[in-house]
Amino acid sequence: MTLLSGKQYIDRLDQMNNDVWVAGERVRGKISAHPAFKGILNTKAHIYNMYLDKEYKAKLTYSNNGIDQKISFQIPKTIKDLQKRRQATQLIARTNGGTIGRSPDYIHTAIMTLSQSKSFFDTRFQKNLNSALERAIENDLSYTHSFVNPQTNRSTHYTEYLHDLKEGEIIAARMLHETEEGIIIHGARLLATQGGITDEILVLPAASTIMEPWYAFAFTIPSNTKGVRFYCREPYSTSTNNNLFNYPLSSRFDEIDTVVIFDHVLIPWERIFFYNDCKRAKTVFQQTDLNMMLLFQAVSRQIIKTEFLLGISESLASSIAITQYQHIQEKISEIIVTLEIMKALLYRAEQNASPNAYGMMVPLATPLMSASTFYQKMYPKLTDFLHQIGASGLISLPIEADFELDPTLSLEHYLRTQTLDGKRKVQLSRLAWDLTMSAFGSRQTQYERYFFGDPIRLASALYQAYPKEPFTDHIHHFLKE
Amino acid sequence: MTLLSGKQYIDRLDQMNNDVWVAGERVRGKISAHPAFKGILNTKAHIYNMYLDKEYKAKLTYSNNGIDQKISFQIPKTIKDLQKRRQATQLIARTNGGTIGRSPDYIHTAIMTLSQSKSFFDTRFQKNLNSALERAIENDLSYTHSFVNPQTNRSTHYTEYLHDLKEGEIIAARMLHETEEGIIIHGARLLATQGGITDEILVLPAASTIMEPWYAFAFTIPSNTKGVRFYCREPYSTSTNNNLFNYPLSSRFDEIDTVVIFDHVLIPWERIFFYNDCKRAKTVFQQTDLNMMLLFQAVSRQIIKTEFLLGISESLASSIAITQYQHIQEKISEIIVTLEIMKALLYRAEQNASPNAYGMMVPLATPLMSASTFYQKMYPKLTDFLHQIGASGLISLPIEADFELDPTLSLEHYLRTQTLDGKRKVQLSRLAWDLTMSAFGSRQTQYERYFFGDPIRLASALYQAYPKEPFTDHIHHFLKE
Amino acid sequence: MTLLSGKQYIDRLDQMNNDVWVAGERVRGKISAHPAFKGILNTKAHIYNMYLDKEYKAKLTYSNNGIDQKISFQIPKTIKDLQKRRQATQLIARTNGGTIGRSPDYIHTAIMTLSQSKSFFDTRFQKNLNSALERAIENDLSYTHSFVNPQTNRSTHYTEYLHDLKEGEIIAARMLHETEEGIIIHGARLLATQGGITDEILVLPAASTIMEPWYAFAFTIPSNTKGVRFYCREPYSTSTNNNLFNYPLSSRFDEIDTVVIFDHVLIPWERIFFYNDCKRAKTVFQQTDLNMMLLFQAVSRQIIKTEFLLGISESLASSIAITQYQHIQEKISEIIVTLEIMKALLYRAEQNASPNAYGMMVPLATPLMSASTFYQKMYPKLTDFLHQIGASGLISLPIEADFELDPTLSLEHYLRTQTLDGKRKVQLSRLAWDLTMSAFGSRQTQYERYFFGDPIRLASALYQAYPKEPFTDHIHHFLKE
Amino acid sequence: MTLLSGKQYIDRLDQMNNDVWVAGERVRGKISAHPAFKGILNTKAHIYNMYLDKEYKAKLTYSNNGIDQKISFQIPKTIKDLQKRRQATQLIARTNGGTIGRSPDYIHTAIMTLSQSKSFFDTRFQKNLNSALERAIENDLSYTHSFVNPQTNRSTHYTEYLHDLKEGEIIAARMLHETEEGIIIHGARLLATQGGITDEILVLPAASTIMEPWYAFAFTIPSNTKGVRFYCREPYSTSTNNNLFNYPLSSRFDEIDTVVIFDHVLIPWERIFFYNDCKRAKTVFQQTDLNMMLLFQAVSRQIIKTEFLLGISESLASSIAITQYQHIQEKISEIIVTLEIMKALLYRAEQNASPNAYGMMVPLATPLMSASTFYQKMYPKLTDFLHQIGASGLISLPIEADFELDPTLSLEHYLRTQTLDGKRKVQLSRLAWDLTMSAFGSRQTQYERYFFGDPIRLASALYQAYPKEPFTDHIHHFLKE
Repeated sequence: MTLLSGKQYIDRLDQMNNDVWVAGERVRGKISAHPAFKGILNTKAHIYNMYLDKEYKAKLTYSNNGIDQKISFQIPKTIKDLQKRRQATQLIARTNGGTIGRSPDYIHTAIMTLSQSKSFFDTRFQKNLNSALERAIENDLSYTHSFVNPQTNRSTHYTEYLHDLKEGEIIAARMLHETEEGIIIHGARLLATQGGITDEILVLPAASTIMEPWYAFAFTIPSNTKGVRFYCREPYSTSTNNNLFNYPLSSRFDEIDTVVIFDHVLIPWERIFFYNDCKRAKTVFQQTDLNMMLLFQAVSRQIIKTEFLLGISESLASSIAITQYQHIQEKISEIIVTLEIMKALLYRAEQNASPNAYGMMVPLATPLMSASTFYQKMYPKLTDFLHQIGASGLISLPIEADFELDPTLSLEHYLRTQTLDGKRKVQLSRLAWDLTMSAFGSRQTQYERYFFGDPIRLASALYQAYPKEPFTDHIHHFLKE
Repeated sequence: MTLLSGKQYIDRLDQMNNDVWVAGERVRGKISAHPAFKGILNTKAHIYNMYLDKEYKAKLTYSNNGIDQKISFQIPKTIKDLQKRRQATQLIARTNGGTIGRSPDYIHTAIMTLSQSKSFFDTRFQKNLNSALERAIENDLSYTHSFVNPQTNRSTHYTEYLHDLKEGEIIAARMLHETEEGIIIHGARLLATQGGITDEILVLPAASTIMEPWYAFAFTIPSNTKGVRFYCREPYSTSTNNNLFNYPLSSRFDEIDTVVIFDHVLIPWERIFFYNDCKRAKTVFQQTDLNMMLLFQAVSRQIIKTEFLLGISESLASSIAITQYQHIQEKISEIIVTLEIMKALLYRAEQNASPNAYGMMVPLATPLMSASTFYQKMYPKLTDFLHQIGASGLISLPIEADFELDPTLSLEHYLRTQTLDGKRKVQLSRLAWDLTMSAFGSRQTQYERYFFGDPIRLASALYQAYPKEPFTDHIHHFLKE
Repeated sequence: MTLLSGKQYIDRLDQMNNDVWVAGERVRGKISAHPAFKGILNTKAHIYNMYLDKEYKAKLTYSNNGIDQKISFQIPKTIKDLQKRRQATQLIARTNGGTIGRSPDYIHTAIMTLSQSKSFFDTRFQKNLNSALERAIENDLSYTHSFVNPQTNRSTHYTEYLHDLKEGEIIAARMLHETEEGIIIHGARLLATQGGITDEILVLPAASTIMEPWYAFAFTIPSNTKGVRFYCREPYSTSTNNNLFNYPLSSRFDEIDTVVIFDHVLIPWERIFFYNDCKRAKTVFQQTDLNMMLLFQAVSRQIIKTEFLLGISESLASSIAITQYQHIQEKISEIIVTLEIMKALLYRAEQNASPNAYGMMVPLATPLMSASTFYQKMYPKLTDFLHQIGASGLISLPIEADFELDPTLSLEHYLRTQTLDGKRKVQLSRLAWDLTMSAFGSRQTQYERYFFGDPIRLASALYQAYPKEPFTDHIHHFLKE
Repeated sequence: MTLLSGKQYIDRLDQMNNDVWVAGERVRGKISAHPAFKGILNTKAHIYNMYLDKEYKAKLTYSNNGIDQKISFQIPKTIKDLQKRRQATQLIARTNGGTIGRSPDYIHTAIMTLSQSKSFFDTRFQKNLNSALERAIENDLSYTHSFVNPQTNRSTHYTEYLHDLKEGEIIAARMLHETEEGIIIHGARLLATQGGITDEILVLPAASTIMEPWYAFAFTIPSNTKGVRFYCREPYSTSTNNNLFNYPLSSRFDEIDTVVIFDHVLIPWERIFFYNDCKRAKTVFQQTDLNMMLLFQAVSRQIIKTEFLLGISESLASSIAITQYQHIQEKISEIIVTLEIMKALLYRAEQNASPNAYGMMVPLATPLMSASTFYQKMYPKLTDFLHQIGASGLISLPIEADFELDPTLSLEHYLRTQTLDGKRKVQLSRLAWDLTMSAFGSRQTQYERYFFGDPIRLASALYQAYPKEPFTDHIHHFLKE
């Protein structure tokens, strides 16, 4: 049963009874029937089905001792493995225009990477890494994750982190104490995308300048573990917007972000990767190459999203016959250049991959970090270009029902363009709008900007990681000649 | 009855039975009770009431032969008149954070300006200009307007404009023929903001490189004139989002944009300002200084909006204690610089106003045109700054209902910040979100970008209007020395 | 003798025998004959003469008890005084395209301001402020100044500043000790523009996060005081480039920047404004409004420079017939918008001036600070626009001698354009080049960028100085409604 | 004698007696002794010698039937060939920081490409293509080239191109008529970089919207052909700046740009590639892949230049201890990202090369075009970053002679920084200055911006060349689902 069908996956989720809250109410009954989750869960079921579909199966799975497994669980040993992994990610991303940031393969990648790096971890816990991956594969699990603390206070000297607080004062989740069965975690974590609609949750330490032992833990647990609660942000998929014409993206691809509250949650020993371990907490992302493997998935997806934006931009521009204008050509050419740059950086990282200490083939870091830093800045510009192409046509957008009127005065006629009838023009425009201007769309933009962390911090990280000596040495010699 | 109360205004509107369509259905019954219009009409009623309110009346009205009239109808004769006009605009704008682009004073200004410029018009129609203003004042009318054609085809050689089409082929509204009672208009016009929820509609020629006589008309008619239909874009105020905490702006200030269809509409002779008159159609905006008077209103409002953005940005940044960071200071300082620039340009235009040929005091053109060109480019950047200040905190936004839960695990606690409890932090963040990221918010951004037309065309207009000779002459002399 | 002629001024300077070094050699003989200084001193002589010239005198001077004095020495008491002051600055700036940053009126303004603020200073030194201004007026002095320490180490924890060093280790100028006659200053100061070619030097404390008492001094002394040495940077005016056609700006307006070394220099008591006085050192720029008065001069000049750039850009664009292109119009319109913004901000600061505690009329701070912050960022963009207008025509630039050839194959013919013969086209292009691409020109760009200090620090200063409460209060009330 | 030594190359050039004019005077005697050319010719001699140097020879040459030839003449047949070609270009570029845009391999590449594409040309001329390459290899020739007309008038309707003018009116070089020996060319061409200091000149049609037969020619001729004259722009290498410390780049790498005048020049039949042939004139750059092969060389070089800028930026920033600041890290990280992007695009073009119709392995077009478009915009930003890193330290720059003074007051001490003594700090700063702020340096910036033509036209070309259908098709299907 390593490859679940969409229905099996949804059925299991419906039975988990996760503690999920939407708009002040606990979700009761089948979670897949709730308007906020219906769309995304249908989409996830579709993704699960793709792995079983003859058309895609060969591209999405590999054979492990005769058993077909998801490629996202495969330990890449060769550049070819990385290529296949990338193609699988992109095949799935293409079905949603790259708008789903946390398709199952994202955290599968994390579980696979951590498991493969088990010698990084304390011997006591290494078997837990093994079993995490086995369980994931065996049960075809999906995951949410949380790598971030609440935004309470972003100053450099915030003191909550430093002190031994009373439980009522704790905000960021911390370990309270150990018991015989495991450790007790209490407090909040942020940005668990798809929180509550996955089988398990993966928790890793939040990056922070301050790292006290009580924050230095890593584990996975089932989403329905006692004491784990998910508060959803306002859903963008609702009972009134489940129309494909009107909301082609929000109605299907809204992943939901959540605040996770841990209320004295027991993390059993066999679920812990480490705890009370500042050294590993600070280095786990770099040392295991988890960052690079996740970036590889993310950049692969961002390429698909850029293609999607390019397709919409060009379609929209041709439909109103403005592709003759130099400034329109210039805007679309900037989208093209962005696409070419992202592809080139990814392929370079892939081509120049090398095996790490744990025997995993890891893409070259600097092109991936460059891609990530570049895209954070470019993505909002790409949406700007689209807005400038669509212009006032993105303001006056009717919905599908508006086209079911008497034909004599119909919008079908009055909104038609050079190449499209009115309804098709509006459908295309609504796609542009839903990708970049609806609540769903502007969350997408913000998400790409902060996908991998604060842009300024990422730029610093790249600066620090980059080998600059060859270049300063060259200057040194140049001046000495 | 020159100053209507909010209730009187709404009652009259409820009785007009305008032909307004939302989501494929004709609005029946009281339009003010319809979810799409309830919020904005309450807001407009509130604005009407402000003129009667002792606290504001002196600032919003002037005495014309002993009768209090709205300052927006006053013909400015002095710089002081302009200042009072500006302050009135800003007083109203402040109540909605500058998000209402078409508050009643906007088109009042147009009616006043055209009326005052009546010698610009053919003698046959001059009395119509007079009566337009008288009627507006006498009945305290509100207006929508349309100055734009559908976006069908934006190439320079689009041929619809040139030919004598069959009626079924017509898209952009044109004059079909004259009758004894007036002229017959048929076809569509765009971007009638607040279309259907005003007393009248003002139609002026669309700016275009091609101007055929059948497009060269200008008039006002009641919104409920036979054959006039308004198709609304998707409303952002709905029955489910009328909550002030969650949607502080969309629930109250969504003006709605509409496509107006003229189905063989008779424009009576006494309502026409000109027709069949390419010369006036091409020059009416410049020659009457209508452009400048509208810009003066718009820039006044944009200043208030910038203040609103500054207030939100600073509040948000202090709440999470990030105002110590240089890059945050730099972002907020750019908002400050924008505000100072807009104020300086407006005050300069005002201080250097001069009377035009029609005896109206007109603000200096070049600072206003500069302000408009500058703001089109800056506004999207200002929203970007806000997004960078709010960061991931703008992604995970719960709603008010989420705070009505049991206090032990409450978001009130877990989302609190340095200076605000959780609910206040979320309320503030939702305001930032609703201004720039909700469907309402991203329409605001697009609106400011295209407020006065295509940025590239406006930059060209400024270039062409600007007296460059003094500067080239100086270079000439400098080189001759 | 309060108004010197150019010749008198130069003669005096030639006799001072300042300790000035150029390219490793001490300047001997008449400094006005040295190729590095000939151009700028001719220009300064011309400026001195302007004050005596009937055409300009009324605009450049005011009558003080019947004696004509330079307006830059006048204490502004009214807005009219500020206007006249501004016009005088601009009249002089116009003769050099705004390229001379330190025309005599710049530091005159400083001397006037400090003198007028004498109650800010310790009573012991107040008479020194008086006599500084009297001496300046009586002798019509010119000044260089130094407000900056060497760039040795820009980290926040640089330790030189903190310790009691041996003399040989000192870099940044500090006070060594007091004597009966005054204090002994030893070490280097930076960026004394026009150092060595002025009568005196004004030294004020360098802005720094660290302020130890030995750096807390302010004084003026004659440029030829024993122990004061000026090391010039490489001059851009040389014996081979003194041709007006080829180097219309560098040959005349290169002010030279210098490192000043104080070698155990005695500053007599009567020349000291304060010393050993960290409190005054930290506040003198703000408290006396010196910053605002200098900014007022600087922004006035920058407007003239922007006009100069606009004139060149438009002349160049028309000469090669590219003003029809939208993207060229857009670029020039950005120069226009910049000009309008700078003018509007300056006029607003001027119109809203108010008297300070010392009875001086001071322009409003925030528009001036905004102008300064805005221009730092815009000026490099303006030069970019010019480069994009000139395009490859700014690369292949011959010199005047190239036009003195046989006419049959002449560049006069082959380089002519739509509107200009070849030589005029090249002359105009060389002006554009000398303003933005020659060594002189690129120093101008760097100078405008750092004119008033590090852009990031200035943005922070504006952020901190700005009254943000009205705007956050408004948000507070808006949310409470 | 296929590989000349530097001396042999210079000797031949010295004997050619090309008609070269500098500053109004014809260059007489050995051109290699002229101050304007001494530096660059020494550098070129050094480059010629590198091919004979044991250390480099293997990397710079290939064996053709047992004879060592320059790799730039090799027809690439495999991806490995392209890699070797790229490495050779970069090896040479590294010796000059990528500042020499027209090192001999640049036009070698053109000659090789045209020769290999000989079936593109009319059969009558195909042997000329063969002999061009043979001659080039046999004699180890260097070339200047001209692909541009004078900038006379850049409007779209410029009429010179259209008419049969009198000879005295002709500006852009055109064919006058045929003779028995060949065709007569008369008029000017632009931007012959290194014009007059090469063996031959390659002339190809200027890109233009208007292509009349008289402009439709292509040929190479010796630089000393009767009637060919080169007018140099002002040289940046002069008798006074030949000091390596002060002008590390201008003194050695100033290639000179020239206007070439053709005075009734006879182009012999055997030198002509085509004439009177609008079809080939319009397509030669695309059809032969000449554009791609030249771009491949250019992008290879630009990568080296970016590394050079990175080395200088990091060296400068560390020397004054500012690498701890986030905004400095961000600036340097943008240089890093640019470097990574350029490398990734080039490698992708290389990895995905494919053989063209003429049997030459050609790099993939779109990544190269993207690199070119991207770099045009980025390069000026990179120089801006450097200016912001260097800050005021790039203004006050002494020269080497200033360090030969008495040590007690020496700049060696006062200008030292955290890590460098004063002289080294100044040397490094002067390198930054000479690369980006000297006349040489700002010409570099302008050159990179216009290297391959007008940025707006290149963006359009990329837009038009790009296969957009896969992306619009995807949108089409996405909406149909």
